Amino acid sequence: MLCRNRSASHRYLLFIYTLPVNAETIAVGSEMLTPHRQDTNSLYLTDKLNGLGVEVRFKSVVGDSTEDLTAAAKLAMRRSDIIILIGGLGPTEDDLTREAVAEALGLKLQRDPEILVKLEERFAKRGIKMSPNNAKQADVLTSAVVLNNPNGSAPGQWISGKYDGKDRTIILLPGPPIELKGLFEAECIPRLRSKVPLQHIAIRELKIALLPESQVDARLAPIYKTFADVQTTILAGAGEIQLHLRCRKDSQTEAEGRVEELAEKIDEEMGDAIFSRKGESLEQIVSYLLQMRGLTLATAESCTGGLLAQRITNRSGSSRYFLGGAVVYSNELKTQFANVPKTMIKQHGAVSREVAKALAEGIRQRCVSSFGVGITGVAGPTGGTEQKPVGLVYVALAGEEGTQVVERNFPGDRKRIRWFATQQALEMIRRALL
Amino acid sequence: MLCRNRSASHRYLLFIYTLPVNAETIAVGSEMLTPHRQDTNSLYLTDKLNGLGVEVRFKSVVGDSTEDLTAAAKLAMRRSDIIILIGGLGPTEDDLTREAVAEALGLKLQRDPEILVKLEERFAKRGIKMSPNNAKQADVLTSAVVLNNPNGSAPGQWISGKYDGKDRTIILLPGPPIELKGLFEAECIPRLRSKVPLQHIAIRELKIALLPESQVDARLAPIYKTFADVQTTILAGAGEIQLHLRCRKDSQTEAEGRVEELAEKIDEEMGDAIFSRKGESLEQIVSYLLQMRGLTLATAESCTGGLLAQRITNRSGSSRYFLGGAVVYSNELKTQFANVPKTMIKQHGAVSREVAKALAEGIRQRCVSSFGVGITGVAGPTGGTEQKPVGLVYVALAGEEGTQVVERNFPGDRKRIRWFATQQALEMIRRALL
Repeated sequence: MLCRNRSASHRYLLFIYTLPVNAETIAVGSEMLTPHRQDTNSLYLTDKLNGLGVEVRFKSVVGDSTEDLTAAAKLAMRRSDIIILIGGLGPTEDDLTREAVAEALGLKLQRDPEILVKLEERFAKRGIKMSPNNAKQADVLTSAVVLNNPNGSAPGQWISGKYDGKDRTIILLPGPPIELKGLFEAECIPRLRSKVPLQHIAIRELKIALLPESQVDARLAPIYKTFADVQTTILAGAGEIQLHLRCRKDSQTEAEGRVEELAEKIDEEMGDAIFSRKGESLEQIVSYLLQMRGLTLATAESCTGGLLAQRITNRSGSSRYFLGGAVVYSNELKTQFANVPKTMIKQHGAVSREVAKALAEGIRQRCVSSFGVGITGVAGPTGGTEQKPVGLVYVALAGEEGTQVVERNFPGDRKRIRWFATQQALEMIRRALL
Repeated sequence: MLCRNRSASHRYLLFIYTLPVNAETIAVGSEMLTPHRQDTNSLYLTDKLNGLGVEVRFKSVVGDSTEDLTAAAKLAMRRSDIIILIGGLGPTEDDLTREAVAEALGLKLQRDPEILVKLEERFAKRGIKMSPNNAKQADVLTSAVVLNNPNGSAPGQWISGKYDGKDRTIILLPGPPIELKGLFEAECIPRLRSKVPLQHIAIRELKIALLPESQVDARLAPIYKTFADVQTTILAGAGEIQLHLRCRKDSQTEAEGRVEELAEKIDEEMGDAIFSRKGESLEQIVSYLLQMRGLTLATAESCTGGLLAQRITNRSGSSRYFLGGAVVYSNELKTQFANVPKTMIKQHGAVSREVAKALAEGIRQRCVSSFGVGITGVAGPTGGTEQKPVGLVYVALAGEEGTQVVERNFPGDRKRIRWFATQQALEMIRRALL
């Protein structure tokens, strides 16, 4: 389960309140109020806003209702400096964001002839006659700046001004992520940069695999607590721990210096356990190390059923260091593809230290690779016994200098056990390459 | 990209407004206002609430601030019948939900001696002395019903009463999903059932693989539009289309009847294209069909790099029909594990109809399986040529009755191309088994 470091997050909170500019996002659409859809745009926007020194203080999801939307926009105007409404800019009857914001701000909507021409051209290019309802996408709020949308038909809108005596910026963005991102990057970030006081922020993300969060925190808390000016957040989940460091100073050099100083102290304490110093994934680090040293890899997976190969090949260019491998679910295939002796499986069972070792060595030999990985275990939920319970996994790594085998008992469900087994394999490869 | 059917969603909206009971969720925690964490509990809660006939009208995320939380709770009391606050019930200084709700509702907090004893017992069992800050987890709002949390230390709370003359129910739930789900299921659903007027709701989820949404909608709109009393939502994404049907009537039989009637009409129109009639995944359906017919499968994957094997083995019990396979990233391994002739790769290239066919037939032969799948393609972003562009994928299925090969040009990025290739393979297996 993902959780966070409470003490760190508490300091984080204090940090927010000293900030001059805060934002909130309102995702618009009834489909995001069903069990089937999630607002993910706000994560992207939060990342970009944080980079500018703007903190997100509220996030909400509102359905396609003028009443609810208007109320949400009014509330946001009272409490946030920057309000970003996501979606509801399309051509249909339930695209109501423009109308709702007009009502909330007491502004009028005017049809912009220039946008209308562009819309018509867009349809003409695709050989389609524009249906009349599309024209509403040309409705612009009085005083709004139109934000060009290179990836879609609905333009964004930007309204900046005093409301109840307070500086407010309202941004209307299209909902499809590709449109939102392109538009925000090109049209909003430069405008926000000139609006938000220049901030000097340094960030750093360190990662650690397979250590328990409590252990990491016990070792690191005495260190990061002496850096009151660096916000440290510890997030744990999916077999790794992320340490997010963030510092704001009067100059970039000063901010970078403090983050660097803390990162070095953490490095000293955790040593080799830190696999990533710039937010890279474990697969990424393993890929760098293999390529740097001109080495290759092959895998023989039983209980992970291809998950390790899949994670490695998810990266473009992986054919340079990954030769391939076998998914040896049946005992016959363990022999056929990885040379595991039948008698060994009979004697020790398919889930055993011996078979893991034989899988790693066999696949290395068969694929003529520098390293061979063998994984065998009980992913569950069925198939466990008293001697070999669900969660028991053997991971072996064979290389020029011999073979090491690790026995682990992973808690959790099938998905988690399989994922942790692949984390274990990647971490073993990484450490062998150090 | 995921999108929805606009006309369907519009009808959905009208539907909401005729409802007697609506809810809103407030997820509490500053970590969910960072780019790294998402509130996912609300999806589970929405599903359960919808099942009771309760619609979720707003969702929001609020940080660990008493001021923000109190304001959010007050606002929710004005607009929603049921308010669910998620998280912020732990023992630390930034667990503020209890305090904020007390302030918003004008209630007091009292330390419950019974909960305190339970907390102390909990710690004693683990051989730890309880630290004093944990005692705040025993603070209960006056008039609140304490909801037992079998999976964690913080109990939930339930407050029901008139506020400003309106019936309101406020539920405080712990944030960790395993705690929230156990508690909601056992303690809240029965209470809500007796509170919400009995609803007769029938739902049905149909799924279609690999057809474009526009085509599906064009064929189905004339049908579902004649069922004004059945809410139809079309969601597209990840190589499949989901049709959600939902109907509310005076009796369960009537509701089920209408949903069934529409489902049958859709079935008639789409025929074999519908792979799932009860929300099952494509892997699940393929697994049922293989097991029913006592057949087995093996895979030889190039560009998908183990993703197909991984999807199949993600299901418990897959060893009954999945023997295993090979990830043949290098040309040598295509020959070594799936008997693809070297000369064939030289003549036609690794990405070719011929090699896909040879992979499927070779792996079937090597693994002695009923079916063999071969996948080869250009997943990109690099490696594409004019003749063989990024997205070109050949998928072959070899069986007793011969081998079929399909050539596809999938748009999108590496991840999407790989996913679609596995969808294609699973869909071919399914159709072969009909």
